[in-house]
Amino acid sequence: MSDVLVRLAATLEARKGASPDSSYVASLYARGLDAILKKVGEEATETVLAAKSGEAERVVHETADLWFHTLVMLAALDLKPEQVLGELQRRFGTSGHSEKAARGKTGA
Amino acid sequence: MSDVLVRLAATLEARKGASPDSSYVASLYARGLDAILKKVGEEATETVLAAKSGEAERVVHETADLWFHTLVMLAALDLKPEQVLGELQRRFGTSGHSEKAARGKTGA
Amino acid sequence: MSDVLVRLAATLEARKGASPDSSYVASLYARGLDAILKKVGEEATETVLAAKSGEAERVVHETADLWFHTLVMLAALDLKPEQVLGELQRRFGTSGHSEKAARGKTGA
Amino acid sequence: MSDVLVRLAATLEARKGASPDSSYVASLYARGLDAILKKVGEEATETVLAAKSGEAERVVHETADLWFHTLVMLAALDLKPEQVLGELQRRFGTSGHSEKAARGKTGA
Repeated sequence: MSDVLVRLAATLEARKGASPDSSYVASLYARGLDAILKKVGEEATETVLAAKSGEAERVVHETADLWFHTLVMLAALDLKPEQVLGELQRRFGTSGHSEKAARGKTGA
Repeated sequence: MSDVLVRLAATLEARKGASPDSSYVASLYARGLDAILKKVGEEATETVLAAKSGEAERVVHETADLWFHTLVMLAALDLKPEQVLGELQRRFGTSGHSEKAARGKTGA
Repeated sequence: MSDVLVRLAATLEARKGASPDSSYVASLYARGLDAILKKVGEEATETVLAAKSGEAERVVHETADLWFHTLVMLAALDLKPEQVLGELQRRFGTSGHSEKAARGKTGA
Repeated sequence: MSDVLVRLAATLEARKGASPDSSYVASLYARGLDAILKKVGEEATETVLAAKSGEAERVVHETADLWFHTLVMLAALDLKPEQVLGELQRRFGTSGHSEKAARGKTGA
């Protein structure tokens, strides 16, 4: 099921040539990187507020919005979710049962 | 490969019973939801700054940090990445080639 | 000139009884604290993006937006900018030439 | 009292020539604009979390941290708080009793 990120990224890639009027994502591309990053920041705040609300459905919804807009950002920068997943897997380790490596510098 | 999110979530779940001294994630759980959400906000800002830098490796690294801490948040709230991926899939549509549904309310 | 914060806060306080249709601030109050906090998060991201752009006018504009929405937040919580300024002054020290005290816990 | 912003900005300006070891602010300057902007983002998230907590003292503390780091950002960009306050005053209007102008584009 989690291949949805990869499939969604393929769709986002395909939208790059589309007219800004044709879709929400095409309009985001047309508005430029700052508009996309503004959405990433907005959705992060909404995710935090949802988590504080304790409403499960709202958390799922806002986290989906946040991941979606990071996928748009990756596409705009010609990067792929596989690279991010690969980075997590690399940190995660071959053993599959240590999160130590997964935290990278965030453990600082 | 993208099952890494699901496998990582299983590891995060398993860390819930661990001593705060035993790992970074266990210490985050012990510090409480606000500490986890603070990290989500921090990593979102770092992702935005990385994207502005134009350095691909840095973007991948910071996006991995952001996704990782949203996974910790989901675990702390007894939610699963499958729910977020399912939400994206639901929006994404069965046809697999329309991002319109994927944007949810973010198109507003 | 910097009394503008105090005077602006007085205006924001006066808007509390107004109809949601009567002004932007009244509509924010009516939408509740989360709507106000969402704006604080948004404007913080826009301030960061403006700073990266290097455009002075844009930075001034976005910082004004950010301070404005923190004032709306303070008003919604029945707090006053004088309390924040007093906190900064307290940290700032009587000597007026040490920022050490001003950084509070942020020095951690 | 609200001149504290202007006086604090003067102190921050004076720290520009100092050794990174000499103070927190000097160390922030030395680490560069991204380090300062990361702090702005962090403090914005902490302000939002404080507001959700409903603890007045915590909100005042975190808002002070946020304003403080926006002042460091302005100093790093050779901008002054008077410019931000002037922008708010300009929006605020000569009449002093309409916040309509104060919201700028944020009313969108």
